Amino acid sequence: MTLIAEIFSQGAEIVSGQTVDTNAAWLSQQLAELGFTLKRHTAVGDDLQDLAELFGEIAGRADCCICTGGLGPTCDDLTAEAVSVASGLPLEFDAVAFAAIQAYYARRQRAMPEANRKQALLPAGAVRIDNRFGTAPGFALQFRRCWFVFLPGVPFEMKQMFGDWVRTDLLQRFALRPDTLVTLRCIGLGESAIQQKLEPLALPPGVVLGFRAAADEVQAKLLFPADVPEAERLRIAAEAAARIGDCVFAVDGLPDIKGDLVAVVDAALAAGAHSLAILETASHGLLAAKCLGRQWLKHAELRLHNETAGTDQQCASHAATLARALQAERQTDFALVQLYRVDSGRFDDKDGGIVLYNALATPQGVVSRQSTAHGAGIHKQNQAALLALDLLRRYFQNSCL
Amino acid sequence: MTLIAEIFSQGAEIVSGQTVDTNAAWLSQQLAELGFTLKRHTAVGDDLQDLAELFGEIAGRADCCICTGGLGPTCDDLTAEAVSVASGLPLEFDAVAFAAIQAYYARRQRAMPEANRKQALLPAGAVRIDNRFGTAPGFALQFRRCWFVFLPGVPFEMKQMFGDWVRTDLLQRFALRPDTLVTLRCIGLGESAIQQKLEPLALPPGVVLGFRAAADEVQAKLLFPADVPEAERLRIAAEAAARIGDCVFAVDGLPDIKGDLVAVVDAALAAGAHSLAILETASHGLLAAKCLGRQWLKHAELRLHNETAGTDQQCASHAATLARALQAERQTDFALVQLYRVDSGRFDDKDGGIVLYNALATPQGVVSRQSTAHGAGIHKQNQAALLALDLLRRYFQNSCL
Repeated sequence: MTLIAEIFSQGAEIVSGQTVDTNAAWLSQQLAELGFTLKRHTAVGDDLQDLAELFGEIAGRADCCICTGGLGPTCDDLTAEAVSVASGLPLEFDAVAFAAIQAYYARRQRAMPEANRKQALLPAGAVRIDNRFGTAPGFALQFRRCWFVFLPGVPFEMKQMFGDWVRTDLLQRFALRPDTLVTLRCIGLGESAIQQKLEPLALPPGVVLGFRAAADEVQAKLLFPADVPEAERLRIAAEAAARIGDCVFAVDGLPDIKGDLVAVVDAALAAGAHSLAILETASHGLLAAKCLGRQWLKHAELRLHNETAGTDQQCASHAATLARALQAERQTDFALVQLYRVDSGRFDDKDGGIVLYNALATPQGVVSRQSTAHGAGIHKQNQAALLALDLLRRYFQNSCL
Repeated sequence: MTLIAEIFSQGAEIVSGQTVDTNAAWLSQQLAELGFTLKRHTAVGDDLQDLAELFGEIAGRADCCICTGGLGPTCDDLTAEAVSVASGLPLEFDAVAFAAIQAYYARRQRAMPEANRKQALLPAGAVRIDNRFGTAPGFALQFRRCWFVFLPGVPFEMKQMFGDWVRTDLLQRFALRPDTLVTLRCIGLGESAIQQKLEPLALPPGVVLGFRAAADEVQAKLLFPADVPEAERLRIAAEAAARIGDCVFAVDGLPDIKGDLVAVVDAALAAGAHSLAILETASHGLLAAKCLGRQWLKHAELRLHNETAGTDQQCASHAATLARALQAERQTDFALVQLYRVDSGRFDDKDGGIVLYNALATPQGVVSRQSTAHGAGIHKQNQAALLALDLLRRYFQNSCL
């Protein structure tokens, strides 16, 4: 049986174009992976009439709808009221929700503004969805054909609440046969290069190969229907990973989730109780910033406006010397040094490119790697931070295999 | 008269969440600036029935709808056919469109695939919109109440065609009177606190007040209809800014755009050709990272795992001493030092809070400010970076007023 799902986004900032609606894409992916057929996305502004009308339309044609936004404390947050108008269910004061909002302010030692009281008003009979990270509780209810789930528009809170409760609830509520998603997470290769490497891959009918280029990585995604056996999934995923090569830093969904590049590096350093010192240039603080809260990072240095000079070999050798010196000076197991030079254009020119020289002093000697980064200044900065971390990842994946 | 506009996006990749729909936001901004009232965004997949149904719905309720996607040569590109089904207008072969598609392939010295012939089939009576950068021509037509404009989904082609023809055509076709948006950009106050401060504000009929909480700031937005005189706009914006107080770091739209906090600080430091040294702790590199490419940042230091201790007064005094020392050591006009201590919970605990002690050594002496930050570790980190920059912003705004 096909289960129809829709995504609904509320907010003047979405409809007016001030904010790009990334929630809709994220939620669609989640629901598609659970086995829903996604039919429609809709976004409307903060207008009671429009909202109520839309809830009525969706209630007649979808089995499930995830709605984001409109749960805040301000006068333009109208979701609960619009649900009440559309469904005829009165709004009721939810004492547990109210206590959670009060506790939120108490933890911050701030007085709760009177406006927040309205966030505790939920349609009668709705299931409350707790929000661990903000003041707005979510809620869910059946309205005619459709199970509606209402979540805040703040992506971080929305994602947490989806993972905490919504996903499990949907799996129990609907007879879903989830597809299995295996994600090959790559760094240092572009989307079309990865696509080309995977072209010879023979996929059984029903298996879908997709690609996603994010800021920090490129993902090749294999979506397996529920009837593909696990051994077949493993075989295909392994073949795909081998075809892409050592740019794959993690394979998620077999079945565990390895996480992003920082998580992969964190796991390796933490497992060995290692210590690290870093010296960064092109990433301009972002390398250290990405390591927030990691106890293995013992020392971080930043050199601004510090382009290196010479031949590639001289630059690489300079980085290696600095890495050895930093390791000795800071008495850490590892020392990571990033140098760079501008290869064409200027650093903050989107057409310009830089060459990165990363060196990692390890207990067994220094390993080095040269890479390039392109695009706008902030993209180069981000790539520089990631490619430095990637040298650590390569060291651990090679020395552990 | 209110002119209602909608945005419609077609494509399986949008509805399944593989692609984030950035076209909808971009087009909405363009139409809002032209004076349309944006009412709804809709996205559906490549299904003839769904598409035709949706065109029928929109034709009854909107004055203008910009549609993207579904104009390609493949079997899942169904837009023209769906328009034909919904409107009853037959598809006709457009010889000029066909010649343009042939010329496109001729320029690339490639044979035109037979599939591309279908891109020259347009609903009878539609206005063809030429595409200088791809094979898919667009088209536009009146269907009941609504003027429909169909553009390709490729953002680059879509934007070019909007600028080449659509914008001018809309201005001629509709009696548009563009609204004016004034944005008060704030840091250090939450959304509900700002709303409370603005509650006493008396707004003339038609002026709409909205709020937006982003990662780096909270915005209060005043949308003025075209008939509100400029002097009245200035008066209201000034009153709103005064009510919020010194947490307003910029007012955009009067008429210039000041930009985000980094841009405001950058403008002040660059204007005076000043130099700055920083020492950061809680922001863990992110303060320096936000200053990428700014020549005024001469030196950046990072102290990891470096919580300070003592009474508030002792911590503030310690930060001031360090700022003076850094300014002397680095010979910069300004030196900014950030210290912190964990006030409750742990740094990376979302329920924990930190107290920040920022000190800025200036040519006239040291200014200090104490703040708090809450939420997940990465939110505290980001707030720490912003609140440090905000001390610079406060110094320049106060010393320049």
